[in-house]
Amino acid sequence: MVFARIVGTVVSTNKEPKLVGKKLLLVQPVEPTGQAKGAPLVAVDSVGAGEGEFVLLVQGSSARQTGMTEGTPVDCTIVAIVDTVEQGGKAVFEKAKDHAGR
Amino acid sequence: MVFARIVGTVVSTNKEPKLVGKKLLLVQPVEPTGQAKGAPLVAVDSVGAGEGEFVLLVQGSSARQTGMTEGTPVDCTIVAIVDTVEQGGKAVFEKAKDHAGR
Amino acid sequence: MVFARIVGTVVSTNKEPKLVGKKLLLVQPVEPTGQAKGAPLVAVDSVGAGEGEFVLLVQGSSARQTGMTEGTPVDCTIVAIVDTVEQGGKAVFEKAKDHAGR
Amino acid sequence: MVFARIVGTVVSTNKEPKLVGKKLLLVQPVEPTGQAKGAPLVAVDSVGAGEGEFVLLVQGSSARQTGMTEGTPVDCTIVAIVDTVEQGGKAVFEKAKDHAGR
Amino acid sequence: MVFARIVGTVVSTNKEPKLVGKKLLLVQPVEPTGQAKGAPLVAVDSVGAGEGEFVLLVQGSSARQTGMTEGTPVDCTIVAIVDTVEQGGKAVFEKAKDHAGR
Repeated sequence: MVFARIVGTVVSTNKEPKLVGKKLLLVQPVEPTGQAKGAPLVAVDSVGAGEGEFVLLVQGSSARQTGMTEGTPVDCTIVAIVDTVEQGGKAVFEKAKDHAGR
Repeated sequence: MVFARIVGTVVSTNKEPKLVGKKLLLVQPVEPTGQAKGAPLVAVDSVGAGEGEFVLLVQGSSARQTGMTEGTPVDCTIVAIVDTVEQGGKAVFEKAKDHAGR
Repeated sequence: MVFARIVGTVVSTNKEPKLVGKKLLLVQPVEPTGQAKGAPLVAVDSVGAGEGEFVLLVQGSSARQTGMTEGTPVDCTIVAIVDTVEQGGKAVFEKAKDHAGR
Repeated sequence: MVFARIVGTVVSTNKEPKLVGKKLLLVQPVEPTGQAKGAPLVAVDSVGAGEGEFVLLVQGSSARQTGMTEGTPVDCTIVAIVDTVEQGGKAVFEKAKDHAGR
Repeated sequence: MVFARIVGTVVSTNKEPKLVGKKLLLVQPVEPTGQAKGAPLVAVDSVGAGEGEFVLLVQGSSARQTGMTEGTPVDCTIVAIVDTVEQGGKAVFEKAKDHAGR
């Protein structure tokens, strides 16, 4: 899984039937410290995450292993809202102190 | 999923039997703002998209999770025509104002 | 799917039993205009393509969705011989005028 | 599979139900000689590895082929703790002499 | 599939139960002409290949389509020992004349 920041939303009225009713979020993959990495992706959310939140993305066929995405043409799903990331004994991300992207 | 612009078509008379009758579109992956990213790909369309349109691509095994592509040797499928992309509270793409690629 | 040019063959007498009898082709991924892109790959052919031909490759689990490759350890399959590629209203590749790689 | 060093932990109270009870580890992919390669990932552990350890990661759908991860939205799993890596006849990594990252 | 040279071995006593008894080989992906390409990977061998040999790797879910790897957390498998690679009508690799890596 990789870290991402939710940075926006995507609206589509003409989409594959299995995607109807699924919210499409614009997500920016980031390093654990929050720095952007590569181009934004579009993900389906399985945990009720909101814009600005720091989350974990699962990709490929594993993105279809949630109740929200099973059997759907989705290759990128948000599976966790991150509370803390600890690296080498110190917190490099803490949701309680996070104000980025809001 | 990633954004792409439909930029052309591919014709093949000698193709795997399961691909017969499927339209092959040339798609250019792009950033949400429309800038090209990497080389063009060939995708099957599941939503009736046309040349010039701004769409979402799903890749890998998830590309086979549409009625159009199930059980076929397809690893890239168009699953949505994008109406709007909103990033940080402002629209970075609006189909109504889009004239690129036409 | 991505475009490729068939540039050679690979011979192996000691291979996984499921690969016995399958021709292994050396393929060079290319841009629609024919420019090489990345390193050559080895693909199994499902359409009777020959050296020099301009083809479409499918990769990953979708490479196993042909009669030739089902249930085999193959992650790259040739699924179409390209006749024409049209981009922005003009032909960027035409098999009838193609003499590259021959 | 690729080599990685376990460099931290990720805590999430709001995650997909199938991830509840699974420890999420921050892992840094590395070369066999230990040099970092690319951005850190988040993996689920199937072998009881601890921070600082040198491990093997399996990715994609194969990451779900362990008792710990079957049927879950996980695309990166730790499947082995490395004892030794021998390259060209000499040991380039030995757990017994390893003190990095601790 | 991609070409690789077997360059070493990996030993792990603490590994996922399904990996017990499987030899883990260190493989260096290479171009058809033998030049290294990217970082070494760890693969399971399905054809009895030995150190120094020039082989074909299959990756992703297709790596599990051999008798040796079915249902296991393996994403990279050696499926063929290469005898010859012919490109543009001439041999760019011949096992009989190969002494690299030994």
